Amino acid sequence: MVTMRDVAARANVSIATVSFVLNGTKRVAPETRARIEAAIQELNYRRNVVARALASSRTRILALLHPDLESRANATVIQFVMGAAHGARERGYDLVLWPVNDDEQMSHLLAGGLVDGALLMEVQIRDSRVERLVASGIPFALIGRTENDDLPYVDIDFATTIHEAVAHLRSYGHERIALITDRARGGPGPGRIMRVESAYREAIAPLGGQPVIIAVDSTSAGGREAARALCEEHPGCTAAILVNEGASAGLAKGIRAAGRAIPGDLSIISASTTRELGEMIEPELTVMAAPAAELARLAVDALIDQLEGVPDAPPHTLIPCTLVPGESVGPVTRS
Amino acid sequence: MVTMRDVAARANVSIATVSFVLNGTKRVAPETRARIEAAIQELNYRRNVVARALASSRTRILALLHPDLESRANATVIQFVMGAAHGARERGYDLVLWPVNDDEQMSHLLAGGLVDGALLMEVQIRDSRVERLVASGIPFALIGRTENDDLPYVDIDFATTIHEAVAHLRSYGHERIALITDRARGGPGPGRIMRVESAYREAIAPLGGQPVIIAVDSTSAGGREAARALCEEHPGCTAAILVNEGASAGLAKGIRAAGRAIPGDLSIISASTTRELGEMIEPELTVMAAPAAELARLAVDALIDQLEGVPDAPPHTLIPCTLVPGESVGPVTRS
Repeated sequence: MVTMRDVAARANVSIATVSFVLNGTKRVAPETRARIEAAIQELNYRRNVVARALASSRTRILALLHPDLESRANATVIQFVMGAAHGARERGYDLVLWPVNDDEQMSHLLAGGLVDGALLMEVQIRDSRVERLVASGIPFALIGRTENDDLPYVDIDFATTIHEAVAHLRSYGHERIALITDRARGGPGPGRIMRVESAYREAIAPLGGQPVIIAVDSTSAGGREAARALCEEHPGCTAAILVNEGASAGLAKGIRAAGRAIPGDLSIISASTTRELGEMIEPELTVMAAPAAELARLAVDALIDQLEGVPDAPPHTLIPCTLVPGESVGPVTRS
Repeated sequence: MVTMRDVAARANVSIATVSFVLNGTKRVAPETRARIEAAIQELNYRRNVVARALASSRTRILALLHPDLESRANATVIQFVMGAAHGARERGYDLVLWPVNDDEQMSHLLAGGLVDGALLMEVQIRDSRVERLVASGIPFALIGRTENDDLPYVDIDFATTIHEAVAHLRSYGHERIALITDRARGGPGPGRIMRVESAYREAIAPLGGQPVIIAVDSTSAGGREAARALCEEHPGCTAAILVNEGASAGLAKGIRAAGRAIPGDLSIISASTTRELGEMIEPELTVMAAPAAELARLAVDALIDQLEGVPDAPPHTLIPCTLVPGESVGPVTRS
């Protein structure tokens, strides 16, 4: 069995220097590093993480459980995934991706003993996957919330986000403000839809009008459908808050195709998306940028704190989106 | 030590049925599954993948090595990542994400003994990370190519893709066709840039004109820069092939902002991107859709075949992009 000591002897350096290279904890001169790597290769040295895992009953692996995201034109998804991967690596953990679309796959994976803990994305308001996680006894953190607020979660602060969006629109004189959300595909849908709707109802209550809520698919076609609904069924609305980034381009195109100006006839704020996506659209959308990478890192930290026994209550962390002004909000100038 | 036999006895089913549930290999009635899961939980049964790994010297874990992708507004990236995760799970492997931005991080991770094999994304034409992989002795497959075509890779067939794009534009009468690529950030850059440029030079050679190659950042600002260069420096070009999806929206906006019509004044094909991204842009772009998820799955399959000793030469697989007509290509109608 080759040890770190053998590697140090072959490379003619101290054991500490070998450790610096292996753990990336300290910068080592390139020539020294090359010598150590050559020794590792010649001796075929491997730190045995598997043996360590067996001895400690810890694998230092976390799972990110997510539904099928392949077909999502969703700019925030990659930020969640990469934020979680970076956050795990920074604390010396590895992140495995588990695409799970049903409970059976979850049983199989959770019973495997591979992971110390799990993160769950795209949490639904009532979510059998969460019940499954609770039953498994495996420590976890949610990115998003169910109706049970006692579970550990990090989430976007939709209440604050929507109130700020409404305040921004009101500062330009808008009083009839529609909400465009995501159409849930079967089931009660993601918790965000419920939370966004209730924040919206609350925020527009002082304005006195009826709420206008339009739920469409998270696609360009969905966005065009929302544009039609706004123009034909709710012509009195002068502004819309969109919480459906996949529909944002289609909404802008549909409104313009109907001969209406953005922002003159309709001001738009796209919430819970990225600045980059807003920039792509014509006109450049005013967005509320989602703190996706930050939330993913916080969820990882909270999970690792649980695993390492940091004595803290389970996290209940909410972060609002950040307003990034574009060219899609202005005063009402329609005739 | 609790065994599968104990779980079967407690749930009053056969061992085979427990195995079906754990491996997801066969559908089991929901009530039976619930009973088995209750037994697993009561007995705290865990299949010990760690012990299995120690005994077999195989962890059945693959690593996806990728640079920092957090800030990329790149619609194909998520398809690569998710395609690889699905492909691995379908063959009973787990995929860990390793964000590695330098060689030191790679040494550390590869020496850890966690993974049986590695996939490398965003391969550069000369790539020290590939040398590091070769030196590590860990089986690997590349998504993209270096200048060394002997290494195992899967890649987009850029030559066929560019030739098809040029042929499509020629069928509308275009003869002055520009190429817009990605500006490499230090170093020789991704292999795709070199391959795309050489395919472009070859494909336009029969047209007799000078090649026009514009390299810009993969951002909306980069796209606007390309639009300016086309309008001011190359006003004779009537069509452009874009291999830079991050710049696609900015290019379309910049051309329109200069008072030029798409496709009347300039036809655009955006290659190596997604249909969904093309749909978001005004006008809807004609794209050559990248086979991102398919390539990622092929890379995973090739890697697992190597690991499992399937007697096949290392893969050299090339797949062209698929033409998806939009509204951005038409005959020249400029005055």
